[in-house]
Amino acid sequence: MLKAIQNLGSSTTTTTTTTTTKGFVASFYRLKPPHATTTSAFVSISSSLLSYYSPRTRPTKPLLFLTRKTRSLEPVRAHSTRSESKMDGTSSSSSAVAVQSSGSVRKINFCQWCGGQTKHDIPDGEEKMRAICTVCGKITYQNPKMVVGCLIEHDNKVLLCKRNIQPSFGLWTLPAGYLEIGESAAEGAIRETWEEAHAEVEVVSPFAHLDIPLIGQTYIIFLAKLRKPHFSPGPESLECQLFSLDDIPFDSLAFSSMAVTLKLYIEDVKAGSRKFHYGTINKRPGSSPSDTHAYTLDNHLQS
Amino acid sequence: MLKAIQNLGSSTTTTTTTTTTKGFVASFYRLKPPHATTTSAFVSISSSLLSYYSPRTRPTKPLLFLTRKTRSLEPVRAHSTRSESKMDGTSSSSSAVAVQSSGSVRKINFCQWCGGQTKHDIPDGEEKMRAICTVCGKITYQNPKMVVGCLIEHDNKVLLCKRNIQPSFGLWTLPAGYLEIGESAAEGAIRETWEEAHAEVEVVSPFAHLDIPLIGQTYIIFLAKLRKPHFSPGPESLECQLFSLDDIPFDSLAFSSMAVTLKLYIEDVKAGSRKFHYGTINKRPGSSPSDTHAYTLDNHLQS
Repeated sequence: MLKAIQNLGSSTTTTTTTTTTKGFVASFYRLKPPHATTTSAFVSISSSLLSYYSPRTRPTKPLLFLTRKTRSLEPVRAHSTRSESKMDGTSSSSSAVAVQSSGSVRKINFCQWCGGQTKHDIPDGEEKMRAICTVCGKITYQNPKMVVGCLIEHDNKVLLCKRNIQPSFGLWTLPAGYLEIGESAAEGAIRETWEEAHAEVEVVSPFAHLDIPLIGQTYIIFLAKLRKPHFSPGPESLECQLFSLDDIPFDSLAFSSMAVTLKLYIEDVKAGSRKFHYGTINKRPGSSPSDTHAYTLDNHLQS
Repeated sequence: MLKAIQNLGSSTTTTTTTTTTKGFVASFYRLKPPHATTTSAFVSISSSLLSYYSPRTRPTKPLLFLTRKTRSLEPVRAHSTRSESKMDGTSSSSSAVAVQSSGSVRKINFCQWCGGQTKHDIPDGEEKMRAICTVCGKITYQNPKMVVGCLIEHDNKVLLCKRNIQPSFGLWTLPAGYLEIGESAAEGAIRETWEEAHAEVEVVSPFAHLDIPLIGQTYIIFLAKLRKPHFSPGPESLECQLFSLDDIPFDSLAFSSMAVTLKLYIEDVKAGSRKFHYGTINKRPGSSPSDTHAYTLDNHLQS
């Protein structure tokens, strides 16, 4: 039921990571973020609804985290007639299709616990801007969200679902959605597969962990197999279909994460070696948010 | 800076999972949670501060998700003189050590965006209890949080940090903490390693993904190596030390997740084969929250 909603913004920024052929190194850790710069970035983020990026001067000290923070602007997404979880952890009760900003960068105005107004400041002993309650002092932290799903193998084919909801209505995806409190990633992936494809599956092995820092999402995909050779579209799918690897509709995929997952899977199948993949999906500078081809897979590591 | 805080409650409940030798199957997906039961569990969770479990009758239809939800009660944790992120996404500005309940089950009384009071109900088209704003209609979702860390290999030893903060003050852990919005898991693990051990590391490969559904945490651990043979305790560590595998202080580890990670690592080293591990950590029924030995690793899968 919970929808994996992935919209990536175009970017004109550059990252400051240092990548090696064997591993991955971030180069920010010796540089403490200057508070003024962080503040500036935060304010910009909060006020830039529906814009993907706030073009701004790169900090003098190129901090990976700060750069990412500045880039983490307002992926938008629509929702359907169902009240659904959003990638920002919020939703609307409206039954109309609406476009909203991402809560990951939305300004938090009130304390969830006491209702007091919040201020946005860097707490003592921290380096990052937070929403702090002016009444009870509670700090609200926002963390990345996990999307869990299954890559179902059956008769040398894989199962895809055509989305019946926004965003990416009518495009194909692996069955996946937000992990809920109280379930494991595998349980969540099995649940989402049932909800979207009415398929009973057994998770066989972990396959991929793909981060999308820009929108605060992490995709965890498992290889799975059908327990019974039956499936049918759930309410969030128009249709479900098994595709041979040569027929996967890469031009009609809903999300970059699914394109990456399927490409890695095809490479593994061709190589005759199943691996576990980790990587970061970064949108290609200047590309459209809806262009699922416009990304780079960075820091790709395997086990 | 962000602390991975892991306290597991004792349990008298049973799970309804069906585990096979090859894969993992959850058996809940055909059974829609009865709303009344969900409601009851939610109310109980919200009112049971500082108690780990609310003993209750197992639902007539044993739903894995519901069972987990009922069990997801109130891990407690303390915080130090620094204002830190908590596993519930909240914190206190108090400088005193305090014990608070987990926000993952804390009642959300107010809307973060408009300040309106919330009601707790099951939204149309959903199956789970949510906090819904009575003014603007926004729904607040709570999702599991990711803890990221590094298992650093150096001269056939691994680097551990002795905690200088609560919980588990004085006990040993791998450097790890909450993933932040805007960074990848690898970047977060590198950042945490710098903050806790002042060690510059390169992430070599993903090693383990361990879910702890009870407390809404997921641990992502990377194998890493020192870029320079230097490390020293950060402010949140009393000391940092390299341990040979025979000398790892399993009786003085801070968290079950670290015990599991290190045991899997030792098994891999002895087998001469590095793998990627996925699994669910479930606390052993009747055990103490502070007993890091009292767990089972369920649904262990490898890649």
